Amino acid sequence: MTAGRFLSLEGGEGAGKSTQAARLAEVLAARGIEAIVTREPGGSEGAEGVRGLLLGGDVARWSAHSETLLFAAARADHVEKRIRPALESGMWVICDRFVDSTRAYQGAQDIDDAAILALHAFGSKGLLPDRTLVLEIDHEAGGARAATRDAGALDRFGQRGPDFHAAVAAGFRRIAEREPERVRLIDADADPATVTDRLLEAIADLLP
Amino acid sequence: MTAGRFLSLEGGEGAGKSTQAARLAEVLAARGIEAIVTREPGGSEGAEGVRGLLLGGDVARWSAHSETLLFAAARADHVEKRIRPALESGMWVICDRFVDSTRAYQGAQDIDDAAILALHAFGSKGLLPDRTLVLEIDHEAGGARAATRDAGALDRFGQRGPDFHAAVAAGFRRIAEREPERVRLIDADADPATVTDRLLEAIADLLP
Repeated sequence: MTAGRFLSLEGGEGAGKSTQAARLAEVLAARGIEAIVTREPGGSEGAEGVRGLLLGGDVARWSAHSETLLFAAARADHVEKRIRPALESGMWVICDRFVDSTRAYQGAQDIDDAAILALHAFGSKGLLPDRTLVLEIDHEAGGARAATRDAGALDRFGQRGPDFHAAVAAGFRRIAEREPERVRLIDADADPATVTDRLLEAIADLLP
Repeated sequence: MTAGRFLSLEGGEGAGKSTQAARLAEVLAARGIEAIVTREPGGSEGAEGVRGLLLGGDVARWSAHSETLLFAAARADHVEKRIRPALESGMWVICDRFVDSTRAYQGAQDIDDAAILALHAFGSKGLLPDRTLVLEIDHEAGGARAATRDAGALDRFGQRGPDFHAAVAAGFRRIAEREPERVRLIDADADPATVTDRLLEAIADLLP
């Protein structure tokens, strides 16, 4: 049995990650590749419980350190209970946010990148996606799109200001510069079908 | 303003930790020392949320690694929001379980002690109690006492077998051997007043 491939979609709020995750799964299915779509924080029963603690309440509810530990705990459960079993059974996994979100979002709150990777090594044996696709849009446009979609229900991260979201976007670009083979920046300022084509191009070498 | 002292009470289920924490606070109050009594997991609003995730459900709900990260997250919140502010205001803190419980309980599930201390350094800046008092009773007697107290409501840790609880007790003794100045083993097979006297003796050098 061949192990499946692991793809993550990253980017700021409102970049179209969940739409593209679903579209990508459909395109893969049409090519005979079975893929599960999952998301973080959450994606397994235990991790969804942690998600509730992480996204609710006011911005200052958790310190950046507590938050980073909670994300690592949720991810450890998700990897063990859902992602690894799927990959080992030969399925592909498309994950809406993974460890690079912690690096970009908690990194923007001065949490050291090496510490985040050490927690990931402890909790999830350092599992990294085969390819990470960062959907880039103008971050102010993204904030507006997320706000329109779900007015009044922005979570603790969506509530933060434009400087924070600019720092997050810069964090994703820094990761892509350091790990150009794994992490690809995708221009997502286009219609959904065009963006899907760009994603497929960026994973062309992984397709059978 | 003098900083307060930080005491933790440790030991297996049913060793009398919460009873002794309350008694100790009363004796300190009689000597003019203001102390708060708190407990882990929990002790702050965020950490109590994590406590609900940690103690509910079946034994296999969390892997040892996820569990260790959740304890570290809860502790980081508890230290930041409750323990440090109390100590800095000059109060004493008596905590029913702290990081040594993670070392004993998760250590009994093969989590490396150095990794637990590294998580504690990350989340809680490595804060350690001024004195840690390990209440020792025969671990089978302790299990029976906990079961009687709260029949049918044993948490995920209380549900485990005698071998696990023997490994936890051995873990506490190992910590006491390595850190004899901070960690004291207290014979808790006695009436509550006698045990309180033994605790006071073990913190005599810290009292004003």
